[in-house]
Amino acid sequence: MSRIAHVGVGGWGKNVVRVVGELADLAWVVDLDEARRAPYAERYPSARITADLDDALADDTVDAVVVATPVPTHYELARRALEAGKHVFVEKPPAMHGEEMEELIALARAGERVLMPGHLLLYHPGLRKVKELVAAGDLGEVACIYGNRQNLGVIRSNENALWSLGVHDLSVILWLLEEEPSEVVAHGLDYLQAGIEDVVFCFLRFPSGKVAHMHLSWLDPHKMRRITVVGREKMVVFDDMELERKVTVYEKAPWEPSETYGEWRTRTGDISSPKVANDEPLRLELQHFLRLCGEGPGDHREALDGLAVMRALDRLTTSLHTGAPA
Amino acid sequence: MSRIAHVGVGGWGKNVVRVVGELADLAWVVDLDEARRAPYAERYPSARITADLDDALADDTVDAVVVATPVPTHYELARRALEAGKHVFVEKPPAMHGEEMEELIALARAGERVLMPGHLLLYHPGLRKVKELVAAGDLGEVACIYGNRQNLGVIRSNENALWSLGVHDLSVILWLLEEEPSEVVAHGLDYLQAGIEDVVFCFLRFPSGKVAHMHLSWLDPHKMRRITVVGREKMVVFDDMELERKVTVYEKAPWEPSETYGEWRTRTGDISSPKVANDEPLRLELQHFLRLCGEGPGDHREALDGLAVMRALDRLTTSLHTGAPA
Amino acid sequence: MSRIAHVGVGGWGKNVVRVVGELADLAWVVDLDEARRAPYAERYPSARITADLDDALADDTVDAVVVATPVPTHYELARRALEAGKHVFVEKPPAMHGEEMEELIALARAGERVLMPGHLLLYHPGLRKVKELVAAGDLGEVACIYGNRQNLGVIRSNENALWSLGVHDLSVILWLLEEEPSEVVAHGLDYLQAGIEDVVFCFLRFPSGKVAHMHLSWLDPHKMRRITVVGREKMVVFDDMELERKVTVYEKAPWEPSETYGEWRTRTGDISSPKVANDEPLRLELQHFLRLCGEGPGDHREALDGLAVMRALDRLTTSLHTGAPA
Amino acid sequence: MSRIAHVGVGGWGKNVVRVVGELADLAWVVDLDEARRAPYAERYPSARITADLDDALADDTVDAVVVATPVPTHYELARRALEAGKHVFVEKPPAMHGEEMEELIALARAGERVLMPGHLLLYHPGLRKVKELVAAGDLGEVACIYGNRQNLGVIRSNENALWSLGVHDLSVILWLLEEEPSEVVAHGLDYLQAGIEDVVFCFLRFPSGKVAHMHLSWLDPHKMRRITVVGREKMVVFDDMELERKVTVYEKAPWEPSETYGEWRTRTGDISSPKVANDEPLRLELQHFLRLCGEGPGDHREALDGLAVMRALDRLTTSLHTGAPA
Repeated sequence: MSRIAHVGVGGWGKNVVRVVGELADLAWVVDLDEARRAPYAERYPSARITADLDDALADDTVDAVVVATPVPTHYELARRALEAGKHVFVEKPPAMHGEEMEELIALARAGERVLMPGHLLLYHPGLRKVKELVAAGDLGEVACIYGNRQNLGVIRSNENALWSLGVHDLSVILWLLEEEPSEVVAHGLDYLQAGIEDVVFCFLRFPSGKVAHMHLSWLDPHKMRRITVVGREKMVVFDDMELERKVTVYEKAPWEPSETYGEWRTRTGDISSPKVANDEPLRLELQHFLRLCGEGPGDHREALDGLAVMRALDRLTTSLHTGAPA
Repeated sequence: MSRIAHVGVGGWGKNVVRVVGELADLAWVVDLDEARRAPYAERYPSARITADLDDALADDTVDAVVVATPVPTHYELARRALEAGKHVFVEKPPAMHGEEMEELIALARAGERVLMPGHLLLYHPGLRKVKELVAAGDLGEVACIYGNRQNLGVIRSNENALWSLGVHDLSVILWLLEEEPSEVVAHGLDYLQAGIEDVVFCFLRFPSGKVAHMHLSWLDPHKMRRITVVGREKMVVFDDMELERKVTVYEKAPWEPSETYGEWRTRTGDISSPKVANDEPLRLELQHFLRLCGEGPGDHREALDGLAVMRALDRLTTSLHTGAPA
Repeated sequence: MSRIAHVGVGGWGKNVVRVVGELADLAWVVDLDEARRAPYAERYPSARITADLDDALADDTVDAVVVATPVPTHYELARRALEAGKHVFVEKPPAMHGEEMEELIALARAGERVLMPGHLLLYHPGLRKVKELVAAGDLGEVACIYGNRQNLGVIRSNENALWSLGVHDLSVILWLLEEEPSEVVAHGLDYLQAGIEDVVFCFLRFPSGKVAHMHLSWLDPHKMRRITVVGREKMVVFDDMELERKVTVYEKAPWEPSETYGEWRTRTGDISSPKVANDEPLRLELQHFLRLCGEGPGDHREALDGLAVMRALDRLTTSLHTGAPA
Repeated sequence: MSRIAHVGVGGWGKNVVRVVGELADLAWVVDLDEARRAPYAERYPSARITADLDDALADDTVDAVVVATPVPTHYELARRALEAGKHVFVEKPPAMHGEEMEELIALARAGERVLMPGHLLLYHPGLRKVKELVAAGDLGEVACIYGNRQNLGVIRSNENALWSLGVHDLSVILWLLEEEPSEVVAHGLDYLQAGIEDVVFCFLRFPSGKVAHMHLSWLDPHKMRRITVVGREKMVVFDDMELERKVTVYEKAPWEPSETYGEWRTRTGDISSPKVANDEPLRLELQHFLRLCGEGPGDHREALDGLAVMRALDRLTTSLHTGAPA
């Protein structure tokens, strides 16, 4: 059983450490905040508690480090863990720039360590089903994917809606299309705080001709967490606000040019929501990490997927600031 | 009672002529297609039927011409009617370029004739209610408006989704904001037919700092006809797919920076759908035109609003083709 | 082509006569109200117009009579038409009491004439699909069917909610189950007008052990037109307020007693909405009638189904007034 | 601060004890199952753990007992606690028969102890809002209340859907109407297990003329937890499946008899969802109990409300078995 050093037990980190504790041997709990880390002594009697990651890195019995701290610290902590020869799971986004991620990957390659960024949605059973449908060609050729992540929700002061919300949809879009965009454009509005966009629209064009779009906002009356994939034969929607119909497949397609009216005929058929397992994405994600720790990093696919996300985020950020495609 | 020459009884024109016949004295029915125009002889015994608009224009008892023909003919027919001294109602878009619309307005001014483009949604009781709320300041300062017009719907071969669908939302957005955009950007995908975009995303920035967005598609699993307005104090949604809740006001707003977490607090309150009259927008629109015919064109506001729409469409089309802001 | 005498062009009758005119040779239009019947002279130049059904019955070229008049006149008009040797389509309910329907059936048998009551929903493509699923055993054994027909809708002064709304669901329930109930109970509230129930709840138990329920109300905030069928393996819902999902099949079933908790395990699977044709039920219904006119009444199944509905309505009415099962 | 002995930490009891621990001084944790009670020693170091309620009852420092055990044990445990001079909170239903509840009330009165049955929904902020609207007369005279509690859910072997599901709606209906029914009728289907009804329909008529209905089922494709109140002026719906619109008020009403058509005119106005606080009903409920422990039982209103529920449940059960009104 892997022995894990977990870093960061505030916010989302609380959930991550709980699942780490269920799936692996939680050897260390690291957090700068004493009040936050204190209760873990009682909760995990066999774990050691510290404010200093180096204590845990010095422990040779530790196989892997899980980083669930605030975003700006991800790169630095992941780098130190890799340098200490540990496998690393790091919450998304794993860095602030593509170059940083490239450096982490180089370290992982050199040390033959696992480096896995926590793109949670890729482990959601509903999106695994969507991936399956796309990969099997059930939708026909994919034309367009778009994400809606809108809500009156958590408004952050240290990152904009693109980084806070868009990283989710972006990871899904790139994973489904298996391409990096040839052109990206982002536009937004920094309404509440100068320089921190509350509403962001992103358009991506891919070498294959496919396009994607993201509508991201934390100033919105609708609560939407939805990915729509438009294929030549069928369309599929992942809607995380639905209780029972997380995935819906629409047999809807343009059919053929109609002869008389200068219009096309369309075809609509069944609408169906395949059963999607209720398994917790976080659990599936960490199980995958632990499996990798056992089997080795292989072709570093998870890290390379994360790099593609970082690069696209970087370019979208540039476009958002310059107003020009990037 | 105004005596009207109606041009074009195919497609949407059939609805327009029916309402014209109810509200005014239908003097002429003009259509190039004999099979289409024939039944009108029986249906309106006092109307004269012809293939040639000039027959109707030569009739001095005719006050006004209603043009409900295919889009590419709008400008030419409207011009001839204005030159013949008639008031003109012309379906949207009234022309193919801003310059054409300017020319029509010059004719209307010179002849003191009414020129009214048929931007139907501006007469929808639900959107009148939204306009009222915005104008009264009920939403607080408006930050963002966006439209969703999506469906697996009529796919045209002679115009793209921007012109076919976007003209609706664009007219509403400009009318609500009472500004012309300082910058527009459009991106799209011509998937089924080269050069005719099926999916178009438009971003508009206004001199006041407000932004707008349109998601337009006739390749979509969702059937959406929705306009969302995000204000500083409240948000309002017009949803034309709802039977009973065409307009919904959300008391949702960001409130104040939260002290501890680098986040903002938000405030949510009542959600309410004010009663909206069931009156047919087309009827209200034509009543407005007939009232103008009686009272005169005034400041030509309707035509100038239509010109703003034409100009924005022109610029969005340029951006769609060049990929650069316009 | 059948030659039809149509009786009653007010209210719903207007729709019926329009479709009759499209599908058959409309020989006579009969209505007591001169203002109502007058326009039909112009609309159907080959039809004869009269206030007196006897005029039409005396016409030997007339094959069939369609009765779409107010409910209390149905039985009398249908009887006269059958006695004159015509096939008869009569709007629902075809009579006010079971005995009257029995008398009509006796006449139809004696004269070998078609007698078809207008239970429109039995011709709805969505409910045909439900019938197919039930008949094929796809749902497993059916346990329970229930209907919800609620709205703030047309409140009648001459019939209660049971007769006005319930006749729809009742015809569907009996047709799906192919049984007559062994016990019926109805309870209601006559809130607005003494003796005319606005809200009615009906429970039916069948010899097979199956049960059914109807919730009928014209004093309700929800607009519901829904039939739910609960089977041992699957459940199916017909929802006439849905645009695209008129029929939805749920793979939901109780599975097996769970060993430990004194509870059962349940199984949930796919949820799917099969494509349902958009054909107008009224047109399908009248096509069926015209086909019967050509082929003869056969085993009088339509009339016998209508008799079962009348008998159940009669018993429910008794229960509603006595408060006891009937 | 009250010192509480909590009995029963399985199932729902786990939630109750957690909140008790937050709000009061948890002195004893009682459960027959050793594995279940063991973890509480560690979790609540100052609490004593036992299998025997008598241990806790003998502790004079204990003020009150909270009973959250299986239903058949409620009456016996509550009785013993009252006899020992403790205040008692007991989960719903507090007994199996009205007589048992009467006996408990007699004990509470004699000892001036609080006896509060856990009718959770009465403390739901959404239903408090509904109660407010009804009590203030905002809906006009109430005509009808009905509950829908349907799902493919927990199917029990030791109680039927009336007892398992109906007790929720029944407590709300009686509390809103402040009347006990003059007549009750229940019908159902015992499909999976002989003698244990899976689907139950209940009709209640009240001395004032009002009526109520409950549709209860654990064999249903729809997930519904809804209470609808129809008033003369407005209608209100409590829907616990909604995230943001727990309560919706419809300005919908029948208006006046229409002169010509034998029909009534209806009036529809605004639809609105007032803001409802997000407070946890269980917490509010237990806070109320602790307040009563401090202030004394007063007029024993909570216990008497619970008695009314028990009496109605008793009569409905009789009707369900006899098929006759009770």
